[in-house]
Amino acid sequence: MSISVSSWEDDNKMSPLLALARKFNCFYLSGFRSSECKPFIVEGFQVGLISPKVMKHLINYPQVFHITNGCVELNPAFRDYNERSEKIDEVLKELREKNAFIALKGWRDECFEVSTAFGAPSLLKIDRSATCLFGVRNYGVSINGFINHPQKGKCIWFQKRSAAKETWPGKWDSMVSGGLSVGQGISQTAIKEAMEEASVPTDLLKKLTSAGCVSFYFESERGLSPNTEFVFDLETPIDFEPVCADGEVECFELLPVTKCVQKILAHDFKTTSAPVVLDFLIRHGVVTPENEPDFVKILELLHVPLQSIYGDRYRISKENGVGESMISV
Amino acid sequence: MSISVSSWEDDNKMSPLLALARKFNCFYLSGFRSSECKPFIVEGFQVGLISPKVMKHLINYPQVFHITNGCVELNPAFRDYNERSEKIDEVLKELREKNAFIALKGWRDECFEVSTAFGAPSLLKIDRSATCLFGVRNYGVSINGFINHPQKGKCIWFQKRSAAKETWPGKWDSMVSGGLSVGQGISQTAIKEAMEEASVPTDLLKKLTSAGCVSFYFESERGLSPNTEFVFDLETPIDFEPVCADGEVECFELLPVTKCVQKILAHDFKTTSAPVVLDFLIRHGVVTPENEPDFVKILELLHVPLQSIYGDRYRISKENGVGESMISV
Repeated sequence: MSISVSSWEDDNKMSPLLALARKFNCFYLSGFRSSECKPFIVEGFQVGLISPKVMKHLINYPQVFHITNGCVELNPAFRDYNERSEKIDEVLKELREKNAFIALKGWRDECFEVSTAFGAPSLLKIDRSATCLFGVRNYGVSINGFINHPQKGKCIWFQKRSAAKETWPGKWDSMVSGGLSVGQGISQTAIKEAMEEASVPTDLLKKLTSAGCVSFYFESERGLSPNTEFVFDLETPIDFEPVCADGEVECFELLPVTKCVQKILAHDFKTTSAPVVLDFLIRHGVVTPENEPDFVKILELLHVPLQSIYGDRYRISKENGVGESMISV
Repeated sequence: MSISVSSWEDDNKMSPLLALARKFNCFYLSGFRSSECKPFIVEGFQVGLISPKVMKHLINYPQVFHITNGCVELNPAFRDYNERSEKIDEVLKELREKNAFIALKGWRDECFEVSTAFGAPSLLKIDRSATCLFGVRNYGVSINGFINHPQKGKCIWFQKRSAAKETWPGKWDSMVSGGLSVGQGISQTAIKEAMEEASVPTDLLKKLTSAGCVSFYFESERGLSPNTEFVFDLETPIDFEPVCADGEVECFELLPVTKCVQKILAHDFKTTSAPVVLDFLIRHGVVTPENEPDFVKILELLHVPLQSIYGDRYRISKENGVGESMISV
């Protein structure tokens, strides 16, 4: 049986929050554009997906990428993590010089690990800006800062991203977030970002509470983003006000939870941060199965099975160059 | 591309909590035993799955079930909800008389709705004990009762099920839970069960907080259980003690959260209630990405996409009787 991830119903009957959950999962719900996108294979494992737009450029680097009808394989002759990372880095730097992709304009000199599943040994590292070209899973942390106000009830802090940011400039976002770079731990990243983006004092950071993660698969003009965000809650004193320490934030705003559904539905909210806030609103009893008709579907779309869509050992048939997944439904 | 839901790694490397998450998803991870189990079609939509063990009996009711190589279709000549429900009910009562299935020994005279997705119009109702014979999705509510103890920290209440219960007798369970029967609302069911199973007083019930839902697909000797549980948290005063009012509970126990992972891993814990407690432990920062190596996989296995595995319109080919899903990955 194939698992159907296609449209379940008429658009007209869909709630606005389900429409949003479908938007941040637009690539997941496209069926991974399976006729066009090809598995990206490293050391015999699928770790990503390559779109035709990217393929067109990789085809010029046959020493690095073995492209067949079935898949794109990183040259299996590369010996180890370092060699694989260096070879891809060279290609990416050349493509960046050539202005081949918008995504590479956001080059960060900050790498993400590439592996078959979260926590599995890393096969290579790749610049953060380039992960979407290969459809490799990326991981981040997000902090929902909130207060329990005696009159206004529970309120959530939001940040407005600086207009100078490469991605999502000027859009509203959760209070604090950041990507999980090579060598950085999850709490470590949360703490660092909380201090840099919102000047959260050390004693307050002790109250940072892990609350789960959300997984979704988004596609934009930059590329493919299978994204998992580790979610933290941080209850702050009523008089705490976040202040940006690194110039990446334009301003902060505090909103009662009753206004937060409208906030994340608005066009000026960063689509890929909506899952984090939506998850908060669900966990804290603001969005419930009784006020949200598509509650169950939304919960499932906040946790799509990214860890199992790639990662199986891939058999490369030497005869015809067509790869096939050894184990699948 | 097929979505792979097969084994991601060696069993030896798996954490105990991931092994548990795989256990309560044993059917999901089996790939739905797709070579043996056949879609169950009502009014042109797949609403369940039929195993060979069940098929063997349904084949004796050709007026009710049209069985082909491809699928099992409820006679499309049945006019409406009532006729469909009555016809299935007659068959089930006969099979119950014949002792055809263990599952039907738990006959409840309490029905569950059958539809293409949660909240979609119901196509028929079916006795609660029989849903697992048809692999139709079922829905329940569960309440995590907890206290914040000044010395012991956060503690969770558990119930031990009565030895007289038809399902999971004598097993440990979450404080309160119950199935969502025909005509019952979600909060309504939570409140009713809290009063019956734990004598929670009315004023305390005002603190009941919706916190999400978990979805998983379990198989037992009774049949196939694609299950979604709506999850509620209830913080109680330190001196509150649950007392069973309906004889279905043997006793209650209060445990510090630090001991709860061991509790749900033990053999005397009801497998299908573990997801609810595990979700609580994750949301409350007890199980974290830093103390649980398989955190991300576990989160995904607590929310498997049950709403999208069935539900597409099914095309019944009149020529050869082979059904095919119109939209699939």
